[in-house]
Amino acid sequence: MATKVIKGGTIIAADRTYRADILIDGDTIAAIGANLSGDEIIDASGCYVMPGGIDPHTHLEMPFMGTHSTDDFDTGTAAALAGGTTMVVDFVLPGQDGLLAALQDWFQKAGKARTDYSFHMAITAWNKQVFDEMPKVVERGINTFKHFMAYKGALMVDDDEMFASFLRCGEIGAMPLVHAENGDVVAHLQQKLLAEGNNGPEAHAYSRPPEVEGEAANRAIMIADQAGVPLYIVHVSCEQSHEAIRRARAKGMRVYGEPLIQHLVLDESEYKNEDWDYAARRVMSPPFRDKINQNGLWAGLATGSLQVVATDHCAFTTEQKRFGVGDFTRIPNGTGGLEDRMPVLWTKGVLTGRLTPNEFVAVTSTNIAQILNIYPRKGAILPGSDADIVIWDPNAKKVISAKTQKSAIDYNVFEGFEVTGLPRMTLSRGQVAFKDGEVLASTGSGRFVEREANPSANRALSTWKELTAPRKVERDPKNIPAGV
Amino acid sequence: MATKVIKGGTIIAADRTYRADILIDGDTIAAIGANLSGDEIIDASGCYVMPGGIDPHTHLEMPFMGTHSTDDFDTGTAAALAGGTTMVVDFVLPGQDGLLAALQDWFQKAGKARTDYSFHMAITAWNKQVFDEMPKVVERGINTFKHFMAYKGALMVDDDEMFASFLRCGEIGAMPLVHAENGDVVAHLQQKLLAEGNNGPEAHAYSRPPEVEGEAANRAIMIADQAGVPLYIVHVSCEQSHEAIRRARAKGMRVYGEPLIQHLVLDESEYKNEDWDYAARRVMSPPFRDKINQNGLWAGLATGSLQVVATDHCAFTTEQKRFGVGDFTRIPNGTGGLEDRMPVLWTKGVLTGRLTPNEFVAVTSTNIAQILNIYPRKGAILPGSDADIVIWDPNAKKVISAKTQKSAIDYNVFEGFEVTGLPRMTLSRGQVAFKDGEVLASTGSGRFVEREANPSANRALSTWKELTAPRKVERDPKNIPAGV
Amino acid sequence: MATKVIKGGTIIAADRTYRADILIDGDTIAAIGANLSGDEIIDASGCYVMPGGIDPHTHLEMPFMGTHSTDDFDTGTAAALAGGTTMVVDFVLPGQDGLLAALQDWFQKAGKARTDYSFHMAITAWNKQVFDEMPKVVERGINTFKHFMAYKGALMVDDDEMFASFLRCGEIGAMPLVHAENGDVVAHLQQKLLAEGNNGPEAHAYSRPPEVEGEAANRAIMIADQAGVPLYIVHVSCEQSHEAIRRARAKGMRVYGEPLIQHLVLDESEYKNEDWDYAARRVMSPPFRDKINQNGLWAGLATGSLQVVATDHCAFTTEQKRFGVGDFTRIPNGTGGLEDRMPVLWTKGVLTGRLTPNEFVAVTSTNIAQILNIYPRKGAILPGSDADIVIWDPNAKKVISAKTQKSAIDYNVFEGFEVTGLPRMTLSRGQVAFKDGEVLASTGSGRFVEREANPSANRALSTWKELTAPRKVERDPKNIPAGV
Amino acid sequence: MATKVIKGGTIIAADRTYRADILIDGDTIAAIGANLSGDEIIDASGCYVMPGGIDPHTHLEMPFMGTHSTDDFDTGTAAALAGGTTMVVDFVLPGQDGLLAALQDWFQKAGKARTDYSFHMAITAWNKQVFDEMPKVVERGINTFKHFMAYKGALMVDDDEMFASFLRCGEIGAMPLVHAENGDVVAHLQQKLLAEGNNGPEAHAYSRPPEVEGEAANRAIMIADQAGVPLYIVHVSCEQSHEAIRRARAKGMRVYGEPLIQHLVLDESEYKNEDWDYAARRVMSPPFRDKINQNGLWAGLATGSLQVVATDHCAFTTEQKRFGVGDFTRIPNGTGGLEDRMPVLWTKGVLTGRLTPNEFVAVTSTNIAQILNIYPRKGAILPGSDADIVIWDPNAKKVISAKTQKSAIDYNVFEGFEVTGLPRMTLSRGQVAFKDGEVLASTGSGRFVEREANPSANRALSTWKELTAPRKVERDPKNIPAGV
Repeated sequence: MATKVIKGGTIIAADRTYRADILIDGDTIAAIGANLSGDEIIDASGCYVMPGGIDPHTHLEMPFMGTHSTDDFDTGTAAALAGGTTMVVDFVLPGQDGLLAALQDWFQKAGKARTDYSFHMAITAWNKQVFDEMPKVVERGINTFKHFMAYKGALMVDDDEMFASFLRCGEIGAMPLVHAENGDVVAHLQQKLLAEGNNGPEAHAYSRPPEVEGEAANRAIMIADQAGVPLYIVHVSCEQSHEAIRRARAKGMRVYGEPLIQHLVLDESEYKNEDWDYAARRVMSPPFRDKINQNGLWAGLATGSLQVVATDHCAFTTEQKRFGVGDFTRIPNGTGGLEDRMPVLWTKGVLTGRLTPNEFVAVTSTNIAQILNIYPRKGAILPGSDADIVIWDPNAKKVISAKTQKSAIDYNVFEGFEVTGLPRMTLSRGQVAFKDGEVLASTGSGRFVEREANPSANRALSTWKELTAPRKVERDPKNIPAGV
Repeated sequence: MATKVIKGGTIIAADRTYRADILIDGDTIAAIGANLSGDEIIDASGCYVMPGGIDPHTHLEMPFMGTHSTDDFDTGTAAALAGGTTMVVDFVLPGQDGLLAALQDWFQKAGKARTDYSFHMAITAWNKQVFDEMPKVVERGINTFKHFMAYKGALMVDDDEMFASFLRCGEIGAMPLVHAENGDVVAHLQQKLLAEGNNGPEAHAYSRPPEVEGEAANRAIMIADQAGVPLYIVHVSCEQSHEAIRRARAKGMRVYGEPLIQHLVLDESEYKNEDWDYAARRVMSPPFRDKINQNGLWAGLATGSLQVVATDHCAFTTEQKRFGVGDFTRIPNGTGGLEDRMPVLWTKGVLTGRLTPNEFVAVTSTNIAQILNIYPRKGAILPGSDADIVIWDPNAKKVISAKTQKSAIDYNVFEGFEVTGLPRMTLSRGQVAFKDGEVLASTGSGRFVEREANPSANRALSTWKELTAPRKVERDPKNIPAGV
Repeated sequence: MATKVIKGGTIIAADRTYRADILIDGDTIAAIGANLSGDEIIDASGCYVMPGGIDPHTHLEMPFMGTHSTDDFDTGTAAALAGGTTMVVDFVLPGQDGLLAALQDWFQKAGKARTDYSFHMAITAWNKQVFDEMPKVVERGINTFKHFMAYKGALMVDDDEMFASFLRCGEIGAMPLVHAENGDVVAHLQQKLLAEGNNGPEAHAYSRPPEVEGEAANRAIMIADQAGVPLYIVHVSCEQSHEAIRRARAKGMRVYGEPLIQHLVLDESEYKNEDWDYAARRVMSPPFRDKINQNGLWAGLATGSLQVVATDHCAFTTEQKRFGVGDFTRIPNGTGGLEDRMPVLWTKGVLTGRLTPNEFVAVTSTNIAQILNIYPRKGAILPGSDADIVIWDPNAKKVISAKTQKSAIDYNVFEGFEVTGLPRMTLSRGQVAFKDGEVLASTGSGRFVEREANPSANRALSTWKELTAPRKVERDPKNIPAGV
Repeated sequence: MATKVIKGGTIIAADRTYRADILIDGDTIAAIGANLSGDEIIDASGCYVMPGGIDPHTHLEMPFMGTHSTDDFDTGTAAALAGGTTMVVDFVLPGQDGLLAALQDWFQKAGKARTDYSFHMAITAWNKQVFDEMPKVVERGINTFKHFMAYKGALMVDDDEMFASFLRCGEIGAMPLVHAENGDVVAHLQQKLLAEGNNGPEAHAYSRPPEVEGEAANRAIMIADQAGVPLYIVHVSCEQSHEAIRRARAKGMRVYGEPLIQHLVLDESEYKNEDWDYAARRVMSPPFRDKINQNGLWAGLATGSLQVVATDHCAFTTEQKRFGVGDFTRIPNGTGGLEDRMPVLWTKGVLTGRLTPNEFVAVTSTNIAQILNIYPRKGAILPGSDADIVIWDPNAKKVISAKTQKSAIDYNVFEGFEVTGLPRMTLSRGQVAFKDGEVLASTGSGRFVEREANPSANRALSTWKELTAPRKVERDPKNIPAGV
């Protein structure tokens, strides 16, 4: 098989920036150094060469009211590649038949993927089958379990179930994830708003104020701490939950937070748009917040209280959004973002000085690879790593538009954003998967990435918890009375 | 009827300290001033004259496993008077028959009271009957409703029920109270500890770490905020919940916190006592904490993030405690404190300079009278106020001992504490109710104190919430698509 | 002398609201109760009756570049009365001749006052004379000493001087006040801005960002804590300093904060006005901040982390402001506010539900009277209190305008504000001082109010500091080597 | 020149743990991979292979009262090697002759070093010479400038000087460091304590409470923010300063904190030792703190609010310490630690689960190399990196004792600590510098490491500051009045 050499670029890693060539042999990076040669030369002059992005939060072809989110593993991962992202992690949502059955479904859907992929398994109920299947899920290479604290009557689990599941995660070396919103309160607020005639898309935001997110984040953190496991909080959108994370970390707790690119740059005023469709297309949970919250998220990325930028890509068409005309609670939740995450973050983050280029790599790729325990196979440009690479042209510009996007939906929440910094080329396991605006990777070329359980954070935390576990007071029997 | 004059004392109010005589006519204070005369002279020279204490947190004759907490309204209020406290507020715990039926029971039990009294009504379930009876409870003069976030399977309510009840409180001008501990997590920890062989009284503390209290406090605060009502958190024992309160108050929320005298001066090392009985007698929820937490509580009282010192007086005998030999979850929760609250707080608070004498009055009497909306009938020395007065001898000393206490139980958690500052005399509605070590008030002399709904905190908060309520975006119909 | 009775009103005190008549005999309140009679009846029906406002922060006839701030004790206190304020506390700024000499000057200037008044003494240098004169100042009835951490080269003192002065305050039972801004950094920023051509009034705000205020507040708090004295921080304008205060109070420190009415309702956008004069008239230190900071201040007033609303009334005419054309550092700092403080606070605070009426009284009058140790002579409606009373018509409305104001200057920073709630009548020590829009009190009718040293906060803090003072380790001499 | 291969070990880097051999050619790492071969085999089986430690905080042969700290670059770096540390950064303390002259002295002293080294330049005064020499210092390869906020009358600079110097750092792409303690307050407390007879070593701790450190850290952070430069705070010992750092980072500020190994494991009770010598040997600034503060430091290292563990190695003999008999202010400040930093941190950090092995590498080596802009030459095991490597035997144990240490002083503050985890071998630029208990590197074998200015943190911050700089309001001249 022919080797490739990426020449003339500047490699940006999470820990450093340097000039070197990269030799790719098959799926992986064979060497990094000066003056490498190979069968095929890829010119990266004037470009940065970075690990391909990893988006740990997607819902491709997600079942919804008898239909599905419109981007599936085919169009979704095409969009990903066009934006420099080479791996997605999707959520398996089990139904009645249990975790393993659902996993089977997701494997099937993901057969169309053009990038590598992994899954998080959702725990949406608690029973013996779930308990028994969790270690089997881990054996299949999935070490993360998602818990919804919202979506009452559907996906939501209560504290009792969460504690049980978190404890189980601890036993099997897995990490719990949470969608942190207090579902009981959201449900009440929804009913109250509808009763008051507040049925438009803006009421979606009213029904999920930052307070319900902050509370749930705080609660999940406590439960994880008592259960003795690390915790990853998805789509942190506001200071209320970010503050809970910072407070936990100040106590040394291993808690991670993931803002979405949408929350970093879009705000709640979007929901007040005169056009119902415009507003409804932005409906996602949590909703967009204000500038103060945005500032907090950026600060967290720069200083490490937040670690990962994701998208929660769950793309519904305008037509699907219209399920919710007259009742905002029926608007399907979700927006796109896979193609735009990295260019928008580069433009609004690196070019403004809010993030260094190295921090950009950390939050789009390296950190999540470490958290998911697939580093340095993914998330790194190192000898032996998968050759998931983006060649980034810092001078390329475009205006984001639904008209030119890879996603299958008919709008883009970043419509009109001018971005500077775009992938010239994206390689997926050594293959040129995107180039000059075209996705070259074929449907189904992506592979499942197994993730081992029990990463170092789990091991360290378990050691500390064991060391500090409560000890029985050993009393002389004569000091213990007879019971009543 | 003969009038009385308290002469020669220094009046300490929450807002000032001054020398004046007090003329009492019947139940109330008729005048305050220099050189007053009356039929009977009470000499207060060398003494401070303060509003009688109000303990807003007692469980007298509380039903428990077929028996009752041992101090009833007779012995409990006798203890109260001996310690300078002239009013108690007890918790009505409804059973199957609803709120009003339970209230009837409590009125009956309280018939024995030697001090004035009021009730908080507990909401331990949510249904139409509860919803309907709440305003009737308010009509009976009770404007506070207690919610247990712990005691799973018994008194505990979940977030859904709490939100509904808090909203109802808002509608009827009442204030919710919470016992803040995450009952789901406590239940899990209890089972885990028992399974590990941790069955002694110290495991009670292990099963209720500060984290579960902090989480619940934080959650209750969010729910109250979303429901638009003030909130009162009982027995705040640690920085975790106190921090949640401070954080809420920093946002302008009307949240109140009540530490107990026990938590201010006793710490968790008590549970490690070699003697099972010693440790079990200290079992209450939340359990005692460490010195750091104590420091925080004292700071809160001095600077106003905490407002009230209570006792949670719920006195079980050693024999009753022994229900829990071999299984700490069966040790009845509760300790005494009614007689000791004020002398201990004076000694450890005022004499050390942690509190001014005025702050002492505020946290033992005035603040809670304002919060409960019975000020200045109670909690004040003002013309027209009930003549509930304690004449405090700052030089009197004693060593606290079960042998000499008024409580009916056989031990005292403050055993051996040397206190300086004791009531020389306590007056209840103008009658000398305690004097020279003897309780003179007769059983049944106390009266129920009605409390009006809708105090100024509720009204202000409602105004603000209405002003800032989410507003519908009024869209031109042409901008709203047809639904799907 | 004829007595007066205020009849038909509702008295609002810091601790309660009730209907009663008030009998005034001479300077003071003789009685409060139902159906009182006297020589003259003042009809307060439909009105609230509150303690006259106390403004603890004014600069009347303050020397400045060879001239003076334009409102003097005559016009300034006339404005005060028109706004319901019956006492002002002005700052004595000593020159070369020491504290007592300056005090003499201020006594002379204050001879024109129409309201009662007191002084804070500024410590603007540190030397033996200052050290020696401080107790003499206290003997004259002044128990507060102001320290400027800004105005480098003029009033500013450094940490060394502050520590020495704070320690001295502790010894003589006084309380330090600080103007908290880091003067070194402000001076650098001023030079930098001027050098960059930023010479307009908006640069005044740029040169004094919230960060320099927060830092200085934090520093002053630490110094006060180490010196063992309470601390009062004037014109707290932002979350940075408010956070420092809250953090201190969370540790139990006796630290007080005073926002100004201007900072509560006006924001930094004022400085960007197209009209230089408009912007320059708003120049004061600290400058106005943004909405986030305003929200924080309101929250602090409601929950007690801030205690007092003042004005920093220091009124310069537009002509005086124009000293600073071309160089913002020469714009005299200060605005008016004495007439507007209470109506604006009522309108923006009480009518919105941000404050209860009782809290309004607390923050405009009662709290500062307690802090300054003149309560209940001032700040209260109680028998024996000075009859400084405002009869407040909650339905009266006006639009604030320079055209109708009592202040001598030619503009008003609240121009165009519509307020609801105004004094119908203001009484100063029993005399009708303002009525139906007219100031009736004559020039010079005000009197100096002596304030006693060593209030309860000082005494409590000293006790605690003594109790927790570091103790020498007593070593056996054999364990101490010979020195080198 | 012969190559070496380290075989059979497990490499621990800051970002991952993996098994590989390391080929060393001359000074640097030539290759990393499986089955490498070279001239000389170093057996690392059963061992971890980590980047050599970097201690960024030493005072070797530091001038003091006519003598010097006893460990010089010879003995100090020998101790370093024995503990796995391969680079030190020492502080140049300029005298009258300016920065460059002092730098010359330090180059001369460092000629004896057995490890590589660099310097921080102290700014102890502010004048034109300093201003002019700073860029020349940067040209010499030093990009960090240290500022003492304590040691009044000696090294201390005031806010004015700090702001000027920080601004200069910004201009030349350097980073300021601070010793954060309020020197004015410390000086006052010292005098107060001495006056009260508190002259023993424990009074050293009393004179430098956490509050003075927290205040200074907070102040330095504000000044750095206003000057637009990153900031590094040395020897963070307590929650007060750590909280200030966390608060800054929560706002996105680029502020770094360095705890010392001493503060992580030793507490203030050490100063109460009956033996004067014992206590005096522990005198350093800041002094040791309590367990609460220790917990905070550990938490910060695990979650990234603190980045670096150093020693502040400044070793004085017992005889030198005795300068301060009878006057604690004359006890020379400083302890040893170079040999013990890594074994103690491993034992108390990694073995307890407080840190993962990767975090251990990060905080002992990688992070500081990045901060100092010498990564990946130092702080990494990567091809091209200097072969500064420690081969760590996780099973090796010893009891720390002055008797067996490399340091030249007669005691060790960790005396009696049992550590598990020790260097089996330390390589410095490819040479075996320590092996089996013996230091093999010769005196003078170390080299100066130049550090380039303007690392990515500086560049990003400058971009952001420029983007958000205050903008002049451009007013129409007709809106600007004539000046006065």
